[in-house]
Amino acid sequence: MKITVLTLFKDMYEGFLNTSIIHRILEKHLAEIEIIDIRDYSFDKHRHVDDTPYGGGAGMLMKVDVVHHAIKENSSENTHIILTSPKSWPLKQEDLVRLSKEEEILIVCGHYEGIDHRIEKYINEKISIGDYILTGGELPSMVLIDGILRLLDEGISSDSLKEESFNSSLLEYPQYTRPVEYEGERVPDVLQNGNHSEIRRYNLKMALRETLLYRPDLLENRELNKEENELLKEIKNEL
Amino acid sequence: MKITVLTLFKDMYEGFLNTSIIHRILEKHLAEIEIIDIRDYSFDKHRHVDDTPYGGGAGMLMKVDVVHHAIKENSSENTHIILTSPKSWPLKQEDLVRLSKEEEILIVCGHYEGIDHRIEKYINEKISIGDYILTGGELPSMVLIDGILRLLDEGISSDSLKEESFNSSLLEYPQYTRPVEYEGERVPDVLQNGNHSEIRRYNLKMALRETLLYRPDLLENRELNKEENELLKEIKNEL
Repeated sequence: MKITVLTLFKDMYEGFLNTSIIHRILEKHLAEIEIIDIRDYSFDKHRHVDDTPYGGGAGMLMKVDVVHHAIKENSSENTHIILTSPKSWPLKQEDLVRLSKEEEILIVCGHYEGIDHRIEKYINEKISIGDYILTGGELPSMVLIDGILRLLDEGISSDSLKEESFNSSLLEYPQYTRPVEYEGERVPDVLQNGNHSEIRRYNLKMALRETLLYRPDLLENRELNKEENELLKEIKNEL
Repeated sequence: MKITVLTLFKDMYEGFLNTSIIHRILEKHLAEIEIIDIRDYSFDKHRHVDDTPYGGGAGMLMKVDVVHHAIKENSSENTHIILTSPKSWPLKQEDLVRLSKEEEILIVCGHYEGIDHRIEKYINEKISIGDYILTGGELPSMVLIDGILRLLDEGISSDSLKEESFNSSLLEYPQYTRPVEYEGERVPDVLQNGNHSEIRRYNLKMALRETLLYRPDLLENRELNKEENELLKEIKNEL
């Protein structure tokens, strides 16, 4: 997969691309990332990329001609072109799974007060990472890259992927590591006894409990089997 | 305001802190950011911070004793302590507004498969930036910092804040800058005629239209006034 980012703040990506899982994936050649400075596609020697809005209003807008120029020079027919924008439902894990199957992605980072509306003609999809306001599209583009690349990485075992939140619509059960007691709080005995079927049932119950406590909406969207229904009844009695 | 981040990937923040609005705010001394390596609070010379989970399962967990040590050494009674975690409702703009009023925030970045569950005793709040899975809490912590700091910045005029999505529960109206025509698409005439009351009404209509098209849920939560109801009726007739 190839992911290209169009941004006014290229330097912002340095730490991100050099650290951790992203770096490992890039070294394995599972994906290629290119960060492009939109200013390189400006039409004047002062490298202007923005201008004042028609009709008045605060702030500066990125120019449609410059951004479109940058898109054209960095995409092909097969490129899936994304604009980071609040004008969308918030990103879901299923969007990342869908995007991880693309061969080429181009992410246009919005900034300033916005981009000339006419840019929407040249993109395939607007993506918002959530219902909150950020200074620009750079962090959202990193969220997309991080979320997509980890799905490409065989280093994340399929076991591990299966246990995660949102794939199964349950939050993760609580986990514990050494020391067995810390400031009066002990690791539950059942996790120490090596009885795998008890551990499985306990962890399932705790996953249901965490989900009920923190994201009850996820339970509404899930069909519970007989065991899960029993456990949920136990939990409700206990709470 | 002081924001401290506890992370295993300190380098990841370099580009972020040195770029753009964040850098400007830090230079203005509106806020102070400190990034702390959790490994500095490990108890052994190999700087171990994680261990295998009790009861089996994939991956490694961050140790409660090490992370708690790092929290204690970097917080006071007044510190609001956040853990990045999927076990929460997704972040909203109103959370950022609330957090922007804190004096001291400490953000603990989750990583690997998770943190020993007992850490929850020592935090005030879990925050998720959305219903998707990332490799760690570093990008979520940057999203929090970016979203909070921009609220502190007087450089963002109150006019500009008022016009933004989510504050008013309407998406932004489309905006345009030069050139007046691009590939056959013209800036709407009304935005060029200088009639401010017509421009205001047109922009309100377009904001309602964008919201109806892309986030109709936001209209359900908003009480519309007479003008907005008229405009919405016009839009529905036109669509």
